[in-house]
Parts: sequence; C-alpha cells; structure tokens
Amino acid sequence: VPMNFLPAGSKADYIHTGVWTKKAMAEAKTQGEVHVAFDGAKDNFAHIPSDDEIEYSEKPAYAYYCVNNTIYGTEWKHVPKVPAGVPLIADPSSDMFSRPIDVDKHALIFAGAQKNLGPAGATLVIIRKDFMETGRKGLPVMLDYRPLAKEQSMLNTPPCFSIYVVGLVFKWILANGGLEGMAKRNEEKAKIVYDAIDNSGGFYRGVARADSRSLMNISFLTPNPELDALFVKEALAHDMSGLKGHRSAGGLRASVYNAFPKKGCEVLAEFMAEFARKNG
Amino acid sequence: VPMNFLPAGSKADYIHTGVWTKKAMAEAKTQGEVHVAFDGAKDNFAHIPSDDEIEYSEKPAYAYYCVNNTIYGTEWKHVPKVPAGVPLIADPSSDMFSRPIDVDKHALIFAGAQKNLGPAGATLVIIRKDFMETGRKGLPVMLDYRPLAKEQSMLNTPPCFSIYVVGLVFKWILANGGLEGMAKRNEEKAKIVYDAIDNSGGFYRGVARADSRSLMNISFLTPNPELDALFVKEALAHDMSGLKGHRSAGGLRASVYNAFPKKGCEVLAEFMAEFARKNG
Repeated sequence: VPMNFLPAGSKADYIHTGVWTKKAMAEAKTQGEVHVAFDGAKDNFAHIPSDDEIEYSEKPAYAYYCVNNTIYGTEWKHVPKVPAGVPLIADPSSDMFSRPIDVDKHALIFAGAQKNLGPAGATLVIIRKDFMETGRKGLPVMLDYRPLAKEQSMLNTPPCFSIYVVGLVFKWILANGGLEGMAKRNEEKAKIVYDAIDNSGGFYRGVARADSRSLMNISFLTPNPELDALFVKEALAHDMSGLKGHRSAGGLRASVYNAFPKKGCEVLAEFMAEFARKNG
Repeated sequence: VPMNFLPAGSKADYIHTGVWTKKAMAEAKTQGEVHVAFDGAKDNFAHIPSDDEIEYSEKPAYAYYCVNNTIYGTEWKHVPKVPAGVPLIADPSSDMFSRPIDVDKHALIFAGAQKNLGPAGATLVIIRKDFMETGRKGLPVMLDYRPLAKEQSMLNTPPCFSIYVVGLVFKWILANGGLEGMAKRNEEKAKIVYDAIDNSGGFYRGVARADSRSLMNISFLTPNPELDALFVKEALAHDMSGLKGHRSAGGLRASVYNAFPKKGCEVLAEFMAEFARKNG
C-alpha cells in the first residue's frame, strides 16, 4: 500500500490500535512519512477511538486503519469518518466477511485469507479503480495493483488451491445467510463468552473496553497470571486449545472466527463458570 | 531479486533464453541497469548458450539465468561459468528437483512451487548467507530476505497448505531415489517422446536444438499449423490435453514434470506414430 500510494515526501495518517497498525506504520516509513492520527498505546489499546479522538493531518495521502485487532480483542463498530477527499484504507484481515462491510466508504480494502476466508496464501483486495490509477508508476509488476487487476488476478500463476477453497467458503457463507447471517451468528457466539466474563462476579475481566469488544477475538484475564496459566492447562485437558493470550496482551484469548461453532462457545462458557467456581 | 541486489546505478547481467528472462529483465530495469550477456532471440531461443557465447559486463552486481524455458523447451545442462566473484542467480522454477542441482555454484536459487514441488502459492529460496547480507537496506520487510530467513520463513502467516504438500512431495522424491532417481526417470520419460519425434522420418521437428532439449517441456511441430491443430484435437479425443504449444512458440508441447508418469509418455509416443502414419 505505501509503495503504491505514499509517494516520497508525502504523509499518510494511521489510526494506531495495536500490533498490526504498528507493523503497518513501520512499513509505511520505508516509503514516506507517517502521522499518528490516534495513538491507542495510551490505554494499552483497550479501545477503538470515536471520530472525535482522531486528529488527521493536512491533506494526507490516505488514512489507514485495522478493523479488528486480534491481540487486544478490539474491533471497529463504525467506519472512521475521514475529511472529504481523503482515501480510506482498511485492513480487515481478521474479520473480513464476519459481518456486512461498507465498501463504498473505502478506497482500498485488503484481507489475508487465513482467518475467515480460506487457507493462508491468498489475499482478497477490493480497490476503487480511480484510486488504483493514482498508484506510483515504475514499480515491479507484482507490486502494482494495475497489472494484477488488468489480468484478473492471473498475471502470474495464482495460489489456485487457496482461491478454490475461498470459493467454497463463499458458497458456505451464502448458504448460511450471507454476511447478515454471519453477523447474527458471530454476535450470538461472542455474547456467550462475554456474558461468561461479565457474569463471573469480577473473577474474569475483559481486556477491551466494553464498547470496543471484538466479535472475533475475546481477550480476558483471570485474577492473576498463575490462574491464567492454570486456566490454559485445564482447558487443554478438556480439549480446548489456543486459549493462551498473545504475549503482548497476556491473559487469555478465545478466537471465534466464522468457522468456529456456537457449541464451542457454550462449552467454553460452562468451563469458565466451573473454573471461576473452583478458583474464585 | 533486483530490489535487493541491484542497487541504483549498478548493472546486472542476464542470459536471455526466452519469455521468463525477458520478464525478469523488465523487472530488473525498474531498479537498475541490465546487460544482455547472451541474446537468444537471434535464433528464436532454440538453444542454450555455451560459456563461449556469453559476454559478461565489467563487474556486474550479479549474473542471472533461467534454468528451464517452458515455452521453447530448452534447458541448461551445465551451470554457466561466471567470472570470479560474480554472484550467480538461477530461476529453476520449472525444473527444480527434476534432477540434482549444483547449489554451491549459486548465490541465490528461487523456484515457484507449482511445477515439481507442490501447489502454486509457495516459493522455495536457497540463498547464500553472505550474499543475503549484501541486500539493500530499508526495503519493506516482506521484500527483504533477511527477516524472512531470521524468522525461519514464518515472518508472516506462511502458505501452510502449500508448504505441507511440498513436504509430502519431498518425501515422495526421497522414496523414489531422490534427485538422482528423478533425473533417471525424467530422462527415460523425455527420451520416449524425443525418439517419437526423431524417428518420425521428418514428420515431427523439435523446436529446441538437440543439445538444449528440456526434459520437462518437449516442444515440437508437425509439417504445418493445420496439422498441429488437428493433432491437438485428436489427442484430446484420446484423453490427452494441454498439448497445444504456447502462442509464442506455436506448434505442440508435451509437459512431463516429475508428477507425469512414464506410461503417459508411452501413450503419447504411440499416438504420435499413428498420427504421423495417417497424416504423413
């Protein structure tokens, strides 16, 4: 994105909400200047900013945000409002097609396949044609959106198997109520686990502020790191794996992407209640 | 490769043997200067040059060649000799692991997985560590070999499924005599089809010069384009597909990668003999 749309000497605005925007800013800095329009580090990335909290620079090349922050478990509920004429770029890699997406408000949306779409190795890109045409000239052909679009994503041999599976997943989404169906299902799933946190009499605490809670990644803590570790160990004995939080956030994390069944959330919630009872 | 190893103002030497080196040179020109050390266009890419035919420039940043040329059906039988101290870069995307490879003579070898290694979407890179360290600084992290090597190819989520299948293919190669086994098998397979060309009393002609013939892609012609088209049509009726030559070379092409069975070559040779008998 910066190679194409951040010409040397220009500036892009980044809404900094966690590890992924940090990495994105580091990459942008290899090409041009970065303005941090909101710095979530101030509350350890516990919330998604309201539009009032974002301070854009004068005529940035684009504004950039990451829609779902897997590590801290925060997720945008609205599309950030940008000044007129500023192209908005979104990275919804970890919640793409988990709910409807307001494509019209964006100049470019890109998402790695590996969370909700299919096997790792493919990336879905939605780009506005007039924005695409403003891209830097003279880039290596594989790094320029125009030839890829012109050749209908077959400029080179594409990752056929990944794309094939993504197609199957899209059919599954359509057969399950489309993006509205996914949203309903994901809201129900996440509510089961968030309720288990909120109804634990204070034993569990959510990492994200309540208004910023992700439907994909539910980050939470027990009263102390020793109990976090015991939780992970005992959960594993009940065939529930992957519950250890990322080292940047600590604690625990339940990832409940599209493919994760509601039943799994119910089993986790029951285990959480039982664990709190025994250790509270 | 050019982004990393062709600093602005420097020059790289390309041994031009077909469509893939043409594309590679176009990409290199986005970064620096290109010297055509051998120009195969003069005989329509019918042969691989001897070392005497290659004229390197004064101290190039690197020398580059494509080991197997899928379209014209030529393949290097030796590693080109480069002046002392010149890093040699090879693209064996279409014949990697079809036979032993002299890794020591190269600074960098890269091969897309999709011919002999596994599903499209993964690339195998073998790079000499001291050469890697000479790469340009300040590149986006995904385009710099160092961080990828440091993180053992897991800087980002890698294309897991493709890599898994590549692992299965490697086990299959090992179980079938390793690279020596592959070479023997591929020589036997290709000989069956080349013999069908050479023993057709002049009905078929090979596109590549005899000393440059590829073991992977066998490009050949019937006496005229109408018969080429009829060959493709009748072959299809016998369940043999993909025999139409690339539009750059015309004629016919049999691709016999590692996975293609010897039996398939025998069936094709029989069909070729029968077709020549009917139409000769």
